[in-house]
Formats: sequence, structure tokens, C-alpha cells
Amino acid sequence: MSGWLAIAGLGPGDEALVTQEVREALAQASDVLGYTPYVARVAPRAGLVLHASDNREELARARHALRLAAEGRRAVIVSSGDPGVFAMAAAVFEVLEEEPEWLALDVRVLPGITAMLAAAARAGAPLGHDFCAINLSDNLKPWALIEKRLRLAAQADFAMAFYNPRSLARPEGFGRALSVLREECEPERLVIFARAVSTQQERIVTVTLAEATPEMADMRTMVLVGNSATRKAGRFVYTPRAAP
Amino acid sequence: MSGWLAIAGLGPGDEALVTQEVREALAQASDVLGYTPYVARVAPRAGLVLHASDNREELARARHALRLAAEGRRAVIVSSGDPGVFAMAAAVFEVLEEEPEWLALDVRVLPGITAMLAAAARAGAPLGHDFCAINLSDNLKPWALIEKRLRLAAQADFAMAFYNPRSLARPEGFGRALSVLREECEPERLVIFARAVSTQQERIVTVTLAEATPEMADMRTMVLVGNSATRKAGRFVYTPRAAP
Repeated sequence: MSGWLAIAGLGPGDEALVTQEVREALAQASDVLGYTPYVARVAPRAGLVLHASDNREELARARHALRLAAEGRRAVIVSSGDPGVFAMAAAVFEVLEEEPEWLALDVRVLPGITAMLAAAARAGAPLGHDFCAINLSDNLKPWALIEKRLRLAAQADFAMAFYNPRSLARPEGFGRALSVLREECEPERLVIFARAVSTQQERIVTVTLAEATPEMADMRTMVLVGNSATRKAGRFVYTPRAAP
Repeated sequence: MSGWLAIAGLGPGDEALVTQEVREALAQASDVLGYTPYVARVAPRAGLVLHASDNREELARARHALRLAAEGRRAVIVSSGDPGVFAMAAAVFEVLEEEPEWLALDVRVLPGITAMLAAAARAGAPLGHDFCAINLSDNLKPWALIEKRLRLAAQADFAMAFYNPRSLARPEGFGRALSVLREECEPERLVIFARAVSTQQERIVTVTLAEATPEMADMRTMVLVGNSATRKAGRFVYTPRAAP
């Protein structure tokens, strides 16, 4: 029996946003690995081993999954959203680069609905023109680089999506990000706080940059910032297709 | 009977990449509207009216769909990929802003797997760190703005995803984009040409920026450009999670 590894995106939370491709991989899996709350989304069944682990354990989890595939198991690493966007796919390839004996394995990435696109859909179409995605966590990059990217993105008039805007371990970063944006953008710029999108706790709040405060974000929040043309149409927020 | 409008993403082509939410909307629809090749992906059935139209007809299509919803029909506008990314959602809100009497209608955006994330998954994880998405079509914005965004994105060391890199009507733009990138990035920068991802015509080619030529892209191609740390691990291309 030949093993394989699929790195699969579960989407933002609602099971109706999981693709058929991911459902089929989970149905065929012998082992599912991932951060505890994501593994909890997979229904237990006979013959399926669930391996839940903490976050910050990404490389150990990737190594474990590759070892299982090498042993002939059918392993699925589950990520929230899309596995290629600030999630597990890059961690698996980091391990594969270090351990080339595993490169012959059948490894596939199965895309999912990433948080920024689920949040944008709920708000309207704030990412309807050119945009960027920035991880505001400074675990793996210096704050100076985040700040540089925010300034250049504002100067490019990109709409922006911020992943991991704020956590208990990093309470101050998002406030600094707002300060940078206030230096580069007009106070009327629209900012969307989209919490727990597609779950029962979903809450979407749109304010101006002048009104935005650090406390409006937590670790379950996606923050979307419009470009200079982003506007409201009734309850919807959208960015016109044409440049301002 | 109260009507509604769903603006739904069909993903990049493979039916296994369509979400259950979109399948259900299509199953309940009385009318499906969209660009001809996208409407052709929806199976005909009794009671379902298919309205195929040309591209460049986005505002007329949006208006037609809103009128149908106002008449009590259950309308779905289908987009390839995600409707909020260079697709139909923004066009619908542009019409809603002009025609506020339609704002009371039930209008929802249903996200899909956008082309850049499907292409990234097939290639490995080239968008595994901060990135941006730029529409290279100059139909709705001046070329000078595209060039400015390319330069700032390169200076920010974003990985980049280019939608609509090249069409018969605009054969020269992508060559100019490559010239800008050659001024800002090292010649070894990895560039992925991902054509017709998830279909039988899928073809993924990775070259360096020095090797890239305009002819490598056509209107069915997504172009992904790595950041300064993007590298290969065997057949995969990925961007490490940590900053360079």
C-alpha cells in the first residue's frame, strides 16, 4: 500500500464551505493531524487516527505527517482556511527541503476558502480591486518589516487583509499597525473587523480608520482595510473595479 | 415568494473544488447568469433558466440579476474562482449603489477557490508569506498605476499573483510588467506560469525571472512571482514562513 500526504484547507468554519476534494481526502485518510481546534472539526470514525497538537508545533507536525506517509499511511494535515496562506503547507515544504528522502512521496496541497475571502464575501466585495495579505504576527519576521510593508501597501493604494492582527502574546502590534495606517491614509478609510466568519459567533463591524481601536480585533478576527475608493452601498462595503 | 440573488464562485474549473454552499444555491436557483463559459459549467434542468452573456457585460448582467431577484426569482450570478476577486461581486455593488431601491433585496456573496490559491496549491506554497494580488488588465485602470504597484510590491518583498496577465487585446502589458520586475528583483526570482489550473489542460511551469518571456502567459494563465526567499524543494515551489 503506498502512502500519501494531503495538506487540506477546511475553510473558515462552516462545513458548507469545505470543498468536495477535501471531504474525499478526509474520507480516505488513515490519520488526520493538525492544531487541536481544527482536528476537532473532523468526525471520528473507525480506522481513523486523530493527532491533535498545539500551535507553534508546525514543523514537528509536518515531520510526523511525512513519516506516516513514508510508512504507507494516508495522512491529512488540516488547516483552517487555505493551507497555503499563513498555514501548514509552507511548513511541510520546509521539512521536505531538509529531508529530501521524503521528496518521492505523494504530497498534495488541497486549497480551501481562506479567511480573507470569506470575510470579504460577508462584508460585500472590499477586495474587488488589487489587494495584499499581510500576517501581522511578528513571530517569524521583525516588526520593522511589517511596518515597511504596511507603508508601501498604503502607498500602492492596495486594499489590505490582515491575518493574526492581535493575540494575547502580542497585544501591542495591531495598535502600531493602525498608527502606521493613520500616517499614510485618510481618516475616512473603511476598516472591517470580521470575527469568527461563517460560525455562530460571526460578527462583522465596519468603521472608519479614525474610529478603529486595537480592542476591536482579537485572535479570531480578520481585519480588512479598503483602498482609497472603498465605499458603502447600503449594508455592503465594496471596492469598485476601476481605479480611483 | 421572495426572490434573492447569490453571487457565487465556481472555483478554478474542477467540480470537486466547488463548495457545498454554492452547489445548494445552484440547486435552488430559478435563473443562472454569467459569462458564457461559466454558465456552461452549470447543468441544465427543468425550471432553470440559463442566461449566458459576453464578458465586458458585467454591469448589464448585474442589473438583470437584480431585476430578476426583485421580481421574486432566485438568481445566481456565477463567476470563475471567487466572485470577490476581479469578478462579479463588485459589479453588483456598483449597480446597487446607483439603484438603492434594490438594496432591500436578499443579496449574498458565496466565496469560491480563487485562481491564485488553486495555482499556488498545485505549485507548492509560493504564497506562504505576505503577498499581493494584482489585475494586470488595464481596462479599468491606467498602466502607470499598474507599474507603480508592481514597483512598490517588489520593494515590499511581497510574493505576487497576477490575474489577467495577457490577452489578445492587450498583448504588450505583460512584457512591460516583466521589465519592471527585472528592474526591481534579482534575475533568479522564481516565476510560476499556471495555466488552466485544475482542468485537463493544466500546465504548471516554473522559471526564473531571467528566463520568463511574455509568450509564457495567455488569458487562461495565472502568474505567481515569489518573494526574495521563494525556493524549490524538489518539484515544489514554496515561500518559507519566516521573513528572508
